[in-house]
Amino acid sequence: MRLTILGCYAATPRTITNPTSQVLEIRNRMFLIDCGEGTQVQLRKNKLKFSKINHIFISHLHGDHFYGLVGLISTFMLLNRQTDLHVYGPKGIKEIILLQLRYSNSFTGYNLYFHELESKESEVIFEDEKVIVKTIPLKHRVYTNGYLFQEKPKERKLNVEAVEKYKIDTAYFRKIKYGGDITLDNGTVIPNAELSFDPEPTKNYAFCSDTMYDETLIPLIQDVDVLYHETTFLESEANKAEKTMHSTAKEAARIAKLANVKQLLLGHYSTRYSSIELFKQEAETIFPNVLLGDDGKVFDFD
Amino acid sequence: MRLTILGCYAATPRTITNPTSQVLEIRNRMFLIDCGEGTQVQLRKNKLKFSKINHIFISHLHGDHFYGLVGLISTFMLLNRQTDLHVYGPKGIKEIILLQLRYSNSFTGYNLYFHELESKESEVIFEDEKVIVKTIPLKHRVYTNGYLFQEKPKERKLNVEAVEKYKIDTAYFRKIKYGGDITLDNGTVIPNAELSFDPEPTKNYAFCSDTMYDETLIPLIQDVDVLYHETTFLESEANKAEKTMHSTAKEAARIAKLANVKQLLLGHYSTRYSSIELFKQEAETIFPNVLLGDDGKVFDFD
Repeated sequence: MRLTILGCYAATPRTITNPTSQVLEIRNRMFLIDCGEGTQVQLRKNKLKFSKINHIFISHLHGDHFYGLVGLISTFMLLNRQTDLHVYGPKGIKEIILLQLRYSNSFTGYNLYFHELESKESEVIFEDEKVIVKTIPLKHRVYTNGYLFQEKPKERKLNVEAVEKYKIDTAYFRKIKYGGDITLDNGTVIPNAELSFDPEPTKNYAFCSDTMYDETLIPLIQDVDVLYHETTFLESEANKAEKTMHSTAKEAARIAKLANVKQLLLGHYSTRYSSIELFKQEAETIFPNVLLGDDGKVFDFD
Repeated sequence: MRLTILGCYAATPRTITNPTSQVLEIRNRMFLIDCGEGTQVQLRKNKLKFSKINHIFISHLHGDHFYGLVGLISTFMLLNRQTDLHVYGPKGIKEIILLQLRYSNSFTGYNLYFHELESKESEVIFEDEKVIVKTIPLKHRVYTNGYLFQEKPKERKLNVEAVEKYKIDTAYFRKIKYGGDITLDNGTVIPNAELSFDPEPTKNYAFCSDTMYDETLIPLIQDVDVLYHETTFLESEANKAEKTMHSTAKEAARIAKLANVKQLLLGHYSTRYSSIELFKQEAETIFPNVLLGDDGKVFDFD
């Protein structure tokens, strides 16, 4: 599981900071999460392969989280993309994008599917054989979802010595990898535990931006490996956080602690502060395992 | 008259090239012409003062000419802008922008005026005491206008020695600057030509992008000081130019020659070529005074 931060600053794009966008690579899938203005340039800068993105998740319809989407969709057209593209986001995203394509007399050569979200309950919005994605309803000034990306359990690892010892045919290996016991020709049952090792542990990643401090999201992110939680402000601006329905670094850390996550990743910083290190320092007073997101940073979680 | 090229490449924004946007500073007015994705960052990079932009001219609704507009409008909100903002562009621009502001639950604290264009004839769309702006209807795949920016005649310059010689009261200086003759107390009429010098010549700038080769625009840009004419392709790709309703460098030069402009400024380059110098070389085979536009270049035309 690898996460590339394309942008993690609040509000407007600037010369050196970018609005929210991230790429999560997990089990060979490449998911784009939010798509602020300039995201396609950030993808190029970080040498990520555009064409591998088939699923885009938009948290909410504030500009710093989606103004780059229409440009990316257009660029996919110019690059002659053929593969289906799926966009998940709040109701309205389809109307906004299609209106602009219509006025520019443009048609995508690929299938563009919109999965518009309206539910205030967590729901599964993507699932294949290896990964599952659920919404995390957040509380912000407009309808907003975070997203939980979960690896499905991996195959068990074959105990090569054991299968050789019992002379088990390769035709049964798949059964073993999926946890099955094996009955030998003489009727003896060999329990799976003897024929395989536990699989590598699965990872999961919770993206929570933008949101006010909200304990109701704790059950949804309980024990995750990595929690990205917005921290627009420091505690000294707690009044601004409350007014704008954002979180402070302390609040993000409190959620991380209560949800017992393994690591807390910070981002969505207001640009009013002299250094983003301040966010880390403040969060660490509550929760120890804090990672400081920054544009262009790559985190390998395996 | 000063022109800053924020971006002059066709199609998609890349790490080192930007889609179309220019800032024209003329008689203390700052006009933004087109606004591709990333324009607000380009404004910052080029240290141009956002707040001085009160008029934005959009040529057409292809993404590389306007996808940065909604972000700029949003940033003006965040910067707490109070001054009126005027946007000129094809019918549809208002619907596109307001739809996005509505979904983000945003309201501008300043007055945002849309001047939607539909006419296929050239028309005056802006005029104040110093500058006049007219549309230049262009032929492209969607409804498109270029824009002609014309300085109005400046005041004549006072001949200080002459007014002292005739002991003319300062109360009459304004009249002299506007070309009036002066009658002395003894009844003698002093002709203006004796009391003032010709004003500095006025400048004008024609922005023509995107367009196919089209001689009908010649009367509208006859004798202009600077003509920006798109040149997406070289003559070797003339078939592509024709198919996509763009121009080659040769065609741009031919228009410049037929319209007897003083200088031709090139831009809107396809990124397929190894060097933009090739556009200049090709254009110069037809027309001598060619300027090569490039992102971040500033041209002073006074």
